[in-house]
Amino acid sequence: MSYFGNVNQVKYEGPDSKTPYAFKYYNPQETINGQTMEEFLRFAVSYWHTFTGEGSDPFGEGTMVRPYDNFTGMDLAKARVEASFEFFDKLDVPYFCFHDFDISPETNSLKETLENIDQITAVIKDHLKTSKTKLLWNTANMFSHPRWLFGAATSPNADVFAYAATKVKKGLEVAKELGSENYVFWGGREGYETLLNTDMKLELDNLARFFHMAVDYAKEIGFEGQFLIEPKPKEPTKHQYDFDVATGMAFLQQYNLSDKFKFNIEANHATLAGHTFEHELRVARINGMLGSVDANQGDPLLGWDTDEFPTDLYSTTLAMYEILQNGGLGSGGLNFDAKVRRGSFDPEDLFLAHIAGMDSFAVGTKVAQKLIEDRVFENFIADRYSSYREGIGLDIVEGKADFNKLSEYALKVDKIETNKSGRQENLKAILNQYLLDAVRG
Amino acid sequence: MSYFGNVNQVKYEGPDSKTPYAFKYYNPQETINGQTMEEFLRFAVSYWHTFTGEGSDPFGEGTMVRPYDNFTGMDLAKARVEASFEFFDKLDVPYFCFHDFDISPETNSLKETLENIDQITAVIKDHLKTSKTKLLWNTANMFSHPRWLFGAATSPNADVFAYAATKVKKGLEVAKELGSENYVFWGGREGYETLLNTDMKLELDNLARFFHMAVDYAKEIGFEGQFLIEPKPKEPTKHQYDFDVATGMAFLQQYNLSDKFKFNIEANHATLAGHTFEHELRVARINGMLGSVDANQGDPLLGWDTDEFPTDLYSTTLAMYEILQNGGLGSGGLNFDAKVRRGSFDPEDLFLAHIAGMDSFAVGTKVAQKLIEDRVFENFIADRYSSYREGIGLDIVEGKADFNKLSEYALKVDKIETNKSGRQENLKAILNQYLLDAVRG
Amino acid sequence: MSYFGNVNQVKYEGPDSKTPYAFKYYNPQETINGQTMEEFLRFAVSYWHTFTGEGSDPFGEGTMVRPYDNFTGMDLAKARVEASFEFFDKLDVPYFCFHDFDISPETNSLKETLENIDQITAVIKDHLKTSKTKLLWNTANMFSHPRWLFGAATSPNADVFAYAATKVKKGLEVAKELGSENYVFWGGREGYETLLNTDMKLELDNLARFFHMAVDYAKEIGFEGQFLIEPKPKEPTKHQYDFDVATGMAFLQQYNLSDKFKFNIEANHATLAGHTFEHELRVARINGMLGSVDANQGDPLLGWDTDEFPTDLYSTTLAMYEILQNGGLGSGGLNFDAKVRRGSFDPEDLFLAHIAGMDSFAVGTKVAQKLIEDRVFENFIADRYSSYREGIGLDIVEGKADFNKLSEYALKVDKIETNKSGRQENLKAILNQYLLDAVRG
Amino acid sequence: MSYFGNVNQVKYEGPDSKTPYAFKYYNPQETINGQTMEEFLRFAVSYWHTFTGEGSDPFGEGTMVRPYDNFTGMDLAKARVEASFEFFDKLDVPYFCFHDFDISPETNSLKETLENIDQITAVIKDHLKTSKTKLLWNTANMFSHPRWLFGAATSPNADVFAYAATKVKKGLEVAKELGSENYVFWGGREGYETLLNTDMKLELDNLARFFHMAVDYAKEIGFEGQFLIEPKPKEPTKHQYDFDVATGMAFLQQYNLSDKFKFNIEANHATLAGHTFEHELRVARINGMLGSVDANQGDPLLGWDTDEFPTDLYSTTLAMYEILQNGGLGSGGLNFDAKVRRGSFDPEDLFLAHIAGMDSFAVGTKVAQKLIEDRVFENFIADRYSSYREGIGLDIVEGKADFNKLSEYALKVDKIETNKSGRQENLKAILNQYLLDAVRG
Repeated sequence: MSYFGNVNQVKYEGPDSKTPYAFKYYNPQETINGQTMEEFLRFAVSYWHTFTGEGSDPFGEGTMVRPYDNFTGMDLAKARVEASFEFFDKLDVPYFCFHDFDISPETNSLKETLENIDQITAVIKDHLKTSKTKLLWNTANMFSHPRWLFGAATSPNADVFAYAATKVKKGLEVAKELGSENYVFWGGREGYETLLNTDMKLELDNLARFFHMAVDYAKEIGFEGQFLIEPKPKEPTKHQYDFDVATGMAFLQQYNLSDKFKFNIEANHATLAGHTFEHELRVARINGMLGSVDANQGDPLLGWDTDEFPTDLYSTTLAMYEILQNGGLGSGGLNFDAKVRRGSFDPEDLFLAHIAGMDSFAVGTKVAQKLIEDRVFENFIADRYSSYREGIGLDIVEGKADFNKLSEYALKVDKIETNKSGRQENLKAILNQYLLDAVRG
Repeated sequence: MSYFGNVNQVKYEGPDSKTPYAFKYYNPQETINGQTMEEFLRFAVSYWHTFTGEGSDPFGEGTMVRPYDNFTGMDLAKARVEASFEFFDKLDVPYFCFHDFDISPETNSLKETLENIDQITAVIKDHLKTSKTKLLWNTANMFSHPRWLFGAATSPNADVFAYAATKVKKGLEVAKELGSENYVFWGGREGYETLLNTDMKLELDNLARFFHMAVDYAKEIGFEGQFLIEPKPKEPTKHQYDFDVATGMAFLQQYNLSDKFKFNIEANHATLAGHTFEHELRVARINGMLGSVDANQGDPLLGWDTDEFPTDLYSTTLAMYEILQNGGLGSGGLNFDAKVRRGSFDPEDLFLAHIAGMDSFAVGTKVAQKLIEDRVFENFIADRYSSYREGIGLDIVEGKADFNKLSEYALKVDKIETNKSGRQENLKAILNQYLLDAVRG
Repeated sequence: MSYFGNVNQVKYEGPDSKTPYAFKYYNPQETINGQTMEEFLRFAVSYWHTFTGEGSDPFGEGTMVRPYDNFTGMDLAKARVEASFEFFDKLDVPYFCFHDFDISPETNSLKETLENIDQITAVIKDHLKTSKTKLLWNTANMFSHPRWLFGAATSPNADVFAYAATKVKKGLEVAKELGSENYVFWGGREGYETLLNTDMKLELDNLARFFHMAVDYAKEIGFEGQFLIEPKPKEPTKHQYDFDVATGMAFLQQYNLSDKFKFNIEANHATLAGHTFEHELRVARINGMLGSVDANQGDPLLGWDTDEFPTDLYSTTLAMYEILQNGGLGSGGLNFDAKVRRGSFDPEDLFLAHIAGMDSFAVGTKVAQKLIEDRVFENFIADRYSSYREGIGLDIVEGKADFNKLSEYALKVDKIETNKSGRQENLKAILNQYLLDAVRG
Repeated sequence: MSYFGNVNQVKYEGPDSKTPYAFKYYNPQETINGQTMEEFLRFAVSYWHTFTGEGSDPFGEGTMVRPYDNFTGMDLAKARVEASFEFFDKLDVPYFCFHDFDISPETNSLKETLENIDQITAVIKDHLKTSKTKLLWNTANMFSHPRWLFGAATSPNADVFAYAATKVKKGLEVAKELGSENYVFWGGREGYETLLNTDMKLELDNLARFFHMAVDYAKEIGFEGQFLIEPKPKEPTKHQYDFDVATGMAFLQQYNLSDKFKFNIEANHATLAGHTFEHELRVARINGMLGSVDANQGDPLLGWDTDEFPTDLYSTTLAMYEILQNGGLGSGGLNFDAKVRRGSFDPEDLFLAHIAGMDSFAVGTKVAQKLIEDRVFENFIADRYSSYREGIGLDIVEGKADFNKLSEYALKVDKIETNKSGRQENLKAILNQYLLDAVRG
C-alpha cells in the first residue's frame, strides 16, 4: 500500500531543474569533507511535525490532510509507521527521530502506555531491518499531558518525577533496542511560570538528580548513545531552565554532568534566546559540546517558536561553517525540527518543505566549505590576532605576564597604535560573492 | 587636492573580480526595466553617515579617521564638500542628500547659522555645475541641539516651533536653489517620552499646522519637489508620532495632507516597528504613497537602529520587487542611510561599504526582475484569488452582493471545499533558486 | 442545580479582608464620577476564556476541570449557559460577551450551525429575563475552523467570504435579539503569512466591502449597537491588517467607514504592537474612537498574547485615567479577555482571577480619579504648553502664522530660552504616592 | 562654596509630605531586619550618570545644566568631587561608586592619565575623612576611548590588553587606597560585533587570564574587596560575553574563578537578556553569587538600556524579596546606575530622581519584609513541594532512588492524582494587597 502515491522517489536533478519534487542542490553522493554529503549531513525527519502534527495553533484547529486520517488508536500508530518509512524512503533520508508519544498513544494507564510503546517499537524494528533509514535519537514527551503542567523532573509533585523516570527508563530501553545514536532531553516545562510559587533551587537539584539517574540507567543497560540537552529559553514555560548553551553548561558543570552530555542546538530556540543560530553553535563547538542540530528557522519579528523549514541560505551557511569546523556532528545529525505552515496542509507540502530544507543546507555546506578551503575568514582572523603570537601577546597567552609586567610594557608603549579596521561590510560582501558562486561559479 | 587618494575610480568588473574596490554586480549602464541601472536605482550617498559621522555610540567616542580631520568650523564644512564630491565621483553615484546641520555648522545665533547654510549652499551649487551627482533630497536637523529635546513642531515651547519653521523655510529655499528633487521630514523627536506630561492632541495638531505651512511656503517660492515623511517608531524618542506607514497615512488623511506627501521608507525603521521592509514598501505602494527609500538594514536581535549597509540579498530582492512593481521610485531614490560599523573606521571602508550595498541592490534588482518577468508569484497569486474573478466572488468585488445574497449562496454551498495550499515553503525554495541563478544562471 | 457550589456570592469586604473570595477594593455601589462603580466600569466576563477555555497551549492539552465536563454537544452548550449565569450572578457582574462558537457548537453543516446558534440564543434570552447581567457584545469566531486558515473577509476563496457574511449576518441578528450593546470584529486571520502569495490590495478592499455590508445589514434589521474593531498586530497571523489603533484609523478613513466604527482596545495587543496600553487608549480617545476595552495584561518578556488577568496597578491606573478623561466608555465596557493560567485549573481560580482583575481596576479607578481631581498632571501640562495660549504660540494655534511670520519672530528671539525640565522622575514618584494612598490615604 | 544651593538637606517627612525634596518612605534610621534601613539598603550614587553624564543620546547633544559647567580639565575634575560630596551629604547617602574616567580626565598619555587619577584619588581621600559617605566600588572605563573599540581584555590587539591591565592595576590600587568594598568589571566591549572576524575561544581564554591576573594582583597588594562581574547581554557590543548570570557562572566555573567573583546585577541588563530582574537575583542568590545591585529600570518596549531611576514598586518589592532572603548584600549595595531623562536636565532633577528611587526601594523593602514575615509565599511553596519531604519524594532528594525503584513505584500509582492549582492570579492579588498596605495598612 502507498500512502504518498502522488509523489515519486525524490532525486537529485541539479540547479536547472524546474520539477518541484527534486533536489536541486542536495546530491547525496557528492563528496564533502571526505564523506558523501549524505554521510556528512546526516539529515533526519522529525516524526512529530511530519507525521503527527495537525496544523493546529493557539487560535485554530488542525488543517493537515494526511493519508492515514481514517485510522485511530494503535491502528493509526501502525499506519503512521508504515507511512513514515515510505516517506523516508522516497525522500532518501538517512535518519529519523521521535518522542515516545509520537509513535504510540498515551492512555490513562501507565502500564498500557508502556505496552503500546513496546508494541510499536517492535513494528519500527522490523522496518529498520529493511530500510536504510536509522534512528538518530528518541526522547520522551513530558510536556503535553496535563500531568506535566508544572514540569517533569522539576515538578513539585514527586509522583510526577517518578512517572517521568519511568518514561525515560523505557525511552532508554527503546533507544538501545532500536540502535538509536543519541538520546535527547528537551525540558519544555522544566522551568517556572512565576517565581511567587517556585522553589528554584529544589527544582534544579531534582533536575540534576534525574540526569544522573538517566546516566546510571544507560550504563546499567549498556546504552552507549550520546545524551543531548536541547536548550530553549521559554515557551510554553515562562522561563525554561535550559535557557541557552551557556546556561546549560553552567548547570552541567555545577552538577558534575559535563562529560556525559552535549547539546542539541535549535536555530529558532537560539533566536528566541537573543542569539544567532551560529552563536550557539560556536559556543558549543569551542567547548566540545556540539552534539546535534535541530535544523529550522524562526521569524525574527515573531516572538514564538515558528519552527519553519530552513530556507535562509545565510543561516545554513553560517551553521555549516561551524559544523565543518567541528569536523562534523559525530553521532548527531541535522534533524528537521520544522513544521510545514498551517496553510501548507497537503501531504505534498511535506516533500516540498523537506526538499527546501535539504537543498538549503546543501547550498550552505558548499558555500561554507569553499570559504574554509580558501581560508577567507581564517586568514583575516589570523592576521587580526597576530599580536598574540609574539612579544607581549605571546607572554599573555603563555602565562608569562602579570599586571606588573604588562603595566611596565604599556607605559613604555604609552600611546596605542591605531587598531586595524574590522572590515565587517567587506567580509559580508565577500560572503555574498561566495554564496552567489556556490552553485555555478 | 585628493582626499581619498588611496582609492581609485570604482568600476564594474563583474562577479569574478577579486578586487575589493570594484563593483561585481552593479553595472551602471546595464539595462533594467527600460532604463540604465543608474537611472533606475538612483543611488544616493547620505552626507551625515558618510562625511560627518564619527563612529561614536552611547558608550564610546568617535573612531573614524577622515582626511579632513585637521580642519574646523567653516573650513571643515568646505573641505567636507570637496571631499564629498570626490567621493561621489569616485563611486560614480548619481545622488546625495543631507541635513542642513551636516553641511554647515550650527552656532548659538540663528542668523549666523542661516548665513553659514547660505555660504555652503553656494559652494555646493558650484560643485553641482561640474558633477554628475545631483541632490536627491535635503532636510533639516531638528533633533541634535538641546533646544529640540521635546520636539520641533511638536515642542511644548512655541519659540521652538518658530525656530523650526525658520529652519525648514531655509531648507526649502536651499532645496529650490540646489534643484533638490524632494524634501524630507524625519521627526526624530516629534513624539513623547511619557504621557504623564504630554498633550498629544495639541502636539499632533501643531505638527499638521507645521506641514501645511511648509506646503504653503513651497508653493510661495515655487519649489516643486516631493514632500516625504520618514516613519520611525521610536529612538531617540520613546514613541515617535510617525510610527510606520499606516500611522503616517492615518495622520495625513485626518489632517487633509494626503495628496501633498509620500513616504521615505527605511528598512531598519520598518523592523523596529515590527514590520518587514517589504511590508512597509507594499503598504505604501498599493496606496500610491511610495516616495523614496532609506536603504540599510538592522540587526533583528538588537533593539536599536543599527543602520547597517544593506547586504542581505533577500531583503534587497523583496524591496526591489516592490519598487519594480511600483514602476520605480519616481523622484525618489535609494539613499544609503547606513553607517560603517564603529570598527570599520578607515576611509577605505566607506568605499567598501557602499560597494557592498550597491552590489547587493543590483543583485536584488536582477533577481526581482527575473521573478516578475517569469510571473513566478503573480501566476500563483492570480490562481489563488481566481474565485474573485467570477460568480459570487465577482459579485462581491463589483458591489453586487450583500449579506442576504451571500447568506443564501453560502447555505446552498454549505460545506466549503478545501482551500488550496499556500505552498509557502516551495515559494521560498523557488526564491532561492532565482537568487542563486541571478548572476550566473 | 449549582455548578459552582464551592464558592458563595462574592461580596465587597474592604481592604482588610483576608477571605480570598471577596472584593477588597471593588465596591459596586460606591460612587465614581457620578455613577456607581458598577455602572461606570461595566465589567464583562468573556465566555470563551471562562467557560470554553481548556487550558491547552501549543505544547500541551487542556488542564481545566469544569463542572460541566461530563456533558457533550448541545447539552454541553446548554449546561454552559446555566453555569455561566450562575457565575455572573455569584460574581455580581453586569455584562458578558461571546463568540457564536463559544455558545454553540459548529458542525460541518452551516445550516445546522445556524440552527444551533438560534437554539442557544433562545436559552440565553430566557436567562437574560431574570438576570441583571446583560450582553456587552457578541462576535463571530472566524478563525478556529480550518476554512478560515487564510482569513474570512480577506480569504482568497470567495466561498469563505460568503460563509463569513452568513455568520456575521446571524451574529447581528443575535445581537439584536439579545439586546447587545455592541458588535465586535477581531480579524485574527485577516492578514497574511507571507507576501509571496498575497494580494494585499484585494484583501483590504474586500475587508472594507465586508464592513460596509455589515453596516448596511445592521441598518436593515435595526440593530443600533456600536461596531467595534479590535486591533492586534499578529498572532496567529504573521501580520494582521488591524495592527493597532492608528492602522485601523487609516483603514477606516480610507474606506469611508470612520463614523461607523470605534475600537475595542486590548492591553496585551497594544504591547505586542510595541505600544503601551495607555498609548492605544489615548490615540483612540483624542480621536473620539475609544469604544470598549479588553482588560488583560501581557508579559513584556514573552512575545505572544498571554491574556493574563490584569493585576498591574500602574496599568489599570493609567488605563482608567484615559477612560475617565473620556467620560467613561459609553456603550462599551471592561471585558476580561483574560484567561486563568494553565496551572490555575480549578473552577475556584475563575473566581479568584476575576476578583483580582476587578479589584485591580477598582484601585486604578480610585487612583486615577484622585489624580484628575487634584489636576496633578493637568496643571503640569497646562503650564508646560502655556506658550501656545498667548503671543506667537496663540497665532500658531489660531492659524494666524506662516513660515514668513515665524521666521521673522525667531530671528528676533534668536537664542531660545532654555526649555523647562519635563520632571519625568518626579511625576512618577507622585504617581506612586497616589497609588499608595488610594485605599487608606 | 555650594554647588547645589537650591536644594536643602533632604529629610524623611513621611508619606503625607507634599514637598518634592523630602523622603516619603525612606527613613534611614528605621529598623529593617535588625539593621537601620541605611545600613541594610546601602544606597550608592553613581558618579558617571550623576556628575559626568551630559544627557546626550545617539541623536542629540548633552542637555544637562550643571553647577560646575564653567570648569575644564583637572579643575573640572576637582570641582566635581566637591560637588559630589555636597550632593552625597545633602542626600544623606552612605555610598558612591565610579569609573576611573569619571573622576579624572583621560589624556593621550597613559602616564599622565595615571597621574591624574592619583591626584584626584588624593582629593577624594581627603573628602572621605570628613564625610559619612564611603566608596562602594570603583571600576575602570575600558569602553569609551577608541582604543577599546574591539574590547579590552578580549581585544585582538595585545597592546590594548596590556593597557587594560595597567588601568585595572591602578584601579585596584585606588580601591585599596580609598577603602573600596568591592571592585567591578563591566565588559561593555568584551564581546563581538560579528563572528566573521572573531576568535571567540582566544578572546574568552584571554578574558580568564585577565581575571586571574587581577585576582593575583589584589592579593599582592592586599586588597580584600569583593570582585564583581556585571552581566549585560549586548549594547554597545552586538554580543557581550557576560550575557547574564548563568553565562557568567559557566565562564567562572570553566576557568576556575568561581570562588573569587560574585555578580553585580542590573535590572535593565536583566530585561535586555530576556529575564526579569528578580530572576537574575534569584539565580545568583541560590548559587551564593549575589554580590551587589545596579538599581534601575528599563522600558520593556524599548530595546536599549534606558537606565531609568527605579520607580516600579513591583520590581523593587521582588528585588528586595530576594535580597532579604539573601540576608542582605554583604559588602555590596544598591547603586543607582540610573540617569535622569534627557528632558530632566535641572540639577534639582538629580535630587528628585534619587528620592524617587530611594523611596521606591524603601517601599519595596517594607512590602517584601512583611511578605516574608507572614510567610505568604513560603507557606504556599512549602505545601506545594511537600511531596519531597516524605515517601518516594524524600527518597529522590536523599539519593535513595533510581529509575528501577521509581518505575516500580510509578507503575503501582499508575494514574497520577491531579496536581494542585498554582494559584498565580490569587498570589498576585495578595501581592497587591501587601503593596497597598505597606505604608498605611
